[in-house]
Amino acid sequence: MTRVISDMSMSLDGFVTGPDDSRENPFGTGAEGLHDWIFKDSTDEDAAILDEAVAHCGALVMGRRSFEKNEGDGGWGDGGPVGDTPVFVVTHHAPTRRYPSVFTFVTDGVESAIRQARAAAGDKDVGLHGATTAQQALNLGLLDEIQVHVVPVLLGGGTRLFDHLGGPVTLRRRRVVATPAATHLRFDVVR
Amino acid sequence: MTRVISDMSMSLDGFVTGPDDSRENPFGTGAEGLHDWIFKDSTDEDAAILDEAVAHCGALVMGRRSFEKNEGDGGWGDGGPVGDTPVFVVTHHAPTRRYPSVFTFVTDGVESAIRQARAAAGDKDVGLHGATTAQQALNLGLLDEIQVHVVPVLLGGGTRLFDHLGGPVTLRRRRVVATPAATHLRFDVVR
Repeated sequence: MTRVISDMSMSLDGFVTGPDDSRENPFGTGAEGLHDWIFKDSTDEDAAILDEAVAHCGALVMGRRSFEKNEGDGGWGDGGPVGDTPVFVVTHHAPTRRYPSVFTFVTDGVESAIRQARAAAGDKDVGLHGATTAQQALNLGLLDEIQVHVVPVLLGGGTRLFDHLGGPVTLRRRRVVATPAATHLRFDVVR
Repeated sequence: MTRVISDMSMSLDGFVTGPDDSRENPFGTGAEGLHDWIFKDSTDEDAAILDEAVAHCGALVMGRRSFEKNEGDGGWGDGGPVGDTPVFVVTHHAPTRRYPSVFTFVTDGVESAIRQARAAAGDKDVGLHGATTAQQALNLGLLDEIQVHVVPVLLGGGTRLFDHLGGPVTLRRRRVVATPAATHLRFDVVR
């Protein structure tokens, strides 16, 4: 059964980017290390967690800002961030430029994007990328799981993963995997 | 050698109290569960972590607000929050009421309180209680360790443990202990 999962790297003080993130400085100041568990410090356990997420991901939802930041200077080339996995980009205005066919631009909100992503994902999961997307899904009651890769740094500023939430949300921890570069925590959202 | 340690329970979204905390509502709304690992859901592993902290604590530093909230309606009785362990309370104005002799009121700031607490702690550690105290110690370069008990809940508001910090601070994880009610994480502050 398809589950909707937010999967993000986060500093211990809750930031997914450092201050002043932009297309030119996609991680924000001081936050390059948030993804060391994927790249330079990756262990077999880290790699297994990433591989699992990719293997289970049937569709992605992201905001326009994440889409633009992840495109970088090189453009998207032939595919999306996860090969030919469909990506639904929530945006106020669909771009006029052409993008690879894995991208669908959704102009009627995150609820619609998640619905379309569920349909595209088949038996696999829907992955949410970006803080705003996760927050909106939580507030709409559409989020099933939260995976956070807690990185041992305090950034002191930037974009918070958990912000603008409504009242308390109870979680149930499913898994803890501790590697040198991150503490990988996975929670069910209890409804 | 004495180490200065912040030790707090925190929601996954970084709050040490829920919204609207006060003397009458010390945990804040929705945040009663932040301390379930100490009380109703405590396992042997949780108890060992608490016992270790108490055994190593030679002195405590807290702010006036934590002091007043922890006093509650019943008053402090004969001792402080950790029996006869000295407690240094950072405040703008020393109270005129008498309090148990474990309490020393410090009116010249957190740096002075930590210095006095180090002297009182002997070979043991100095524990910091409260978000403001921890933040000030971090910004002054006086914090050696951070212990956080991450509780599986999103509070959506309240007092953040990590706020008002300066630039990035690198941490090194020392320990992870996962119990049903909390993920106990302990970090060195890297200077």
